[in-house]
Amino acid sequence: MLNKNSWIPHSEDTHFSIHNLPFGIFSVGSNQKRVGIAIGEQIVDMAVVSALELFKDQPIDQQVFKEDTLNSFIALGKPITNEVRIKVQNWLMEDQSPLKEHEHILIDQSAATLHMPIHIGDYTDFYSSLEHATNVGKMFRGPENPLLPNWKHLPVGYHGRASSIVESGIPIHRPTGQVLPKEASSPEFHASSQLDFELEMAFVIGKENRLGQPVSLADAENHIFGMVLFNDWSARDIQKWEYVPLGPFLGKSFASSISPWIVTMEALDPFRVKGPVQEPQVLPYLQFQGPYNFDIGLKVSLTPPEGNDNILCTTNFKHMYWNMAQQLAHHTVNGCNLRVGDLMASGTISGPEPKNYGSMLELSWGGTKPIILDDGMERTFVENYDTITLYGLAEKPGIKVGFGETRTKILPTIYG
Amino acid sequence: MLNKNSWIPHSEDTHFSIHNLPFGIFSVGSNQKRVGIAIGEQIVDMAVVSALELFKDQPIDQQVFKEDTLNSFIALGKPITNEVRIKVQNWLMEDQSPLKEHEHILIDQSAATLHMPIHIGDYTDFYSSLEHATNVGKMFRGPENPLLPNWKHLPVGYHGRASSIVESGIPIHRPTGQVLPKEASSPEFHASSQLDFELEMAFVIGKENRLGQPVSLADAENHIFGMVLFNDWSARDIQKWEYVPLGPFLGKSFASSISPWIVTMEALDPFRVKGPVQEPQVLPYLQFQGPYNFDIGLKVSLTPPEGNDNILCTTNFKHMYWNMAQQLAHHTVNGCNLRVGDLMASGTISGPEPKNYGSMLELSWGGTKPIILDDGMERTFVENYDTITLYGLAEKPGIKVGFGETRTKILPTIYG
Repeated sequence: MLNKNSWIPHSEDTHFSIHNLPFGIFSVGSNQKRVGIAIGEQIVDMAVVSALELFKDQPIDQQVFKEDTLNSFIALGKPITNEVRIKVQNWLMEDQSPLKEHEHILIDQSAATLHMPIHIGDYTDFYSSLEHATNVGKMFRGPENPLLPNWKHLPVGYHGRASSIVESGIPIHRPTGQVLPKEASSPEFHASSQLDFELEMAFVIGKENRLGQPVSLADAENHIFGMVLFNDWSARDIQKWEYVPLGPFLGKSFASSISPWIVTMEALDPFRVKGPVQEPQVLPYLQFQGPYNFDIGLKVSLTPPEGNDNILCTTNFKHMYWNMAQQLAHHTVNGCNLRVGDLMASGTISGPEPKNYGSMLELSWGGTKPIILDDGMERTFVENYDTITLYGLAEKPGIKVGFGETRTKILPTIYG
Repeated sequence: MLNKNSWIPHSEDTHFSIHNLPFGIFSVGSNQKRVGIAIGEQIVDMAVVSALELFKDQPIDQQVFKEDTLNSFIALGKPITNEVRIKVQNWLMEDQSPLKEHEHILIDQSAATLHMPIHIGDYTDFYSSLEHATNVGKMFRGPENPLLPNWKHLPVGYHGRASSIVESGIPIHRPTGQVLPKEASSPEFHASSQLDFELEMAFVIGKENRLGQPVSLADAENHIFGMVLFNDWSARDIQKWEYVPLGPFLGKSFASSISPWIVTMEALDPFRVKGPVQEPQVLPYLQFQGPYNFDIGLKVSLTPPEGNDNILCTTNFKHMYWNMAQQLAHHTVNGCNLRVGDLMASGTISGPEPKNYGSMLELSWGGTKPIILDDGMERTFVENYDTITLYGLAEKPGIKVGFGETRTKILPTIYG
């Protein structure tokens, strides 16, 4: 992969190098939404490219590039979507490129609006960071036995709300709901005072399985199209009162935020690393060989109103205890059917050091240790008009593959 | 509503009287799916009716009757969908009916195939029967304090899996998964030996709300299009090991089954009754005035292979502690957006007497009290090749409004 260069000029720091080429949905002005590929500070307009019949040797209905989500394109299957990406990659490197011969193929990202890249049928959230689960267990159940008995035997997960997943840039209103005050026996009703982010990544299902037909660990990779950054907004006070015994509900369902570009698993291939040793040994259907963790640097910033970006957390996706193939094999082992465009999030990605913690809950240790910002102000949770931004970038010498960012401003509640 | 009669002959016992007229999706042979209304043993083909321009005075795109789900029709809004239903009701009673003048308007149900009536964006399952929650609490936590502290303050609910909801008639394979044997510390992997049904009803969202904009209790009814029967299949052994702390996942996500005809809230209007007094008093956003429980008789039968229908349970939807308006107001109080076609299930509907219990878990009291079938065989949970059927019928003198049935056969696991 080294020494690849595009004839499109871009900064060395770009997340969207020739090695990446993520897919998204964009529009310009009042034109209709369509499929694009990010390169540097530009977008390759795939609706225009396909209209030039550059894919006429492949069994692709051009219409898939003119839809308002990537679902139909992704459903073509990896053999075809990979070939499309490689062709575009070659055209972006060749001196005699068909992409140079036509205007309107390249759009400045600054002139475009990015949209939700997929229609999400079902959204699942896992809980697969050992460090995060341990931190939460220590805070809620004490330091002796922070992990529940099932945690190291299966990738714990639950169904989340798909309708309220929005793209980067969409502001979120603080949720209102029931909260149990300390030592009270009856709840009160007010805006959440413990609004939190959760730094997560999520993968997009690229191939369906039929109801009743599990996907094996060996086949799981074939069902994963690509990845995004994911902010699993959480209202800790609402969550705490409601979640026993059936799990998180209104403490999460008010919103989640994703990054607009889907980075393919093929672009992430150079960043595979081995995951942690799993002890006790897991059941055979979850015993994974080989490297399928990914070395992706992650960070989170908090920007107060009219203030600077304050980096709250730096961590890495490679820390995950359960990998995506294990999550997918587990999810389908009961016969549950997945559909193209379904989204599976990792759970909060924390790491071994306090600076690696992926939520305010952990960073402020349940609100007991305020975080000091560069202007001297303190935060234990997220305040109104704060902006939270997630960043993700995989890099090694000569290769940068990034996710861009997921940026979200918090607005006051509008209840009542 | 009394003394309404259709010129279409049908048995007195039909669930689909002139008072009902539920909407569904059907096809005949290889013809495309379309919208139908059930009347007696027949179906009014709404694609044919609309092509006759009988709705030309209303702002309805005829295409909505030719789609393969009801979502676009429902999205027209209650003022229009109600008018369509009332027009058809009148035409089915008038001697000089335009429906008599054309062939192909009426189809025998026996000649038609019924399909999933809606595309379900998100599916939520509540836990709103006091009797069911109390029974489960007694079994899992002992008889002293069966209800958790939040139960009477909010309608507990969680997100379920939308992709695996199927229509009546689709057989379900027994799920395989992790189970913790008694007194063991490590799980085993095998087919569930505690497969259960849950007798539930579910309502269909008919009007969206925007992200961040709660729906008030007073407005909730306007967002509910109609109802179906719902079987929330559950693998108790899988569920028990996995569900702490994030709730049910693979123990439920392998399948749920719904009845194919959506009964409108307008058809159910004569069956409104007051719900139970809620004590302690709930927070103001959940304080409901007036009757919005529904007197709907429910029953469940188990049919062993080559055996007879054995009625296991008879109960009534009127027993619910939390009503649908409260569920909807709670669901959106944090700003969560609902979309047309979203489905919200009640949770298992039990009643005060043991014969009213809506799951095998309760009927066999955790497997300790086997149920004796008419052929002398015993059941504690559902066995392979058993068929479970849910029935629902609201009736008062001269009026029958029924849901038909949800019938599902269990097949062996196909894992591995």
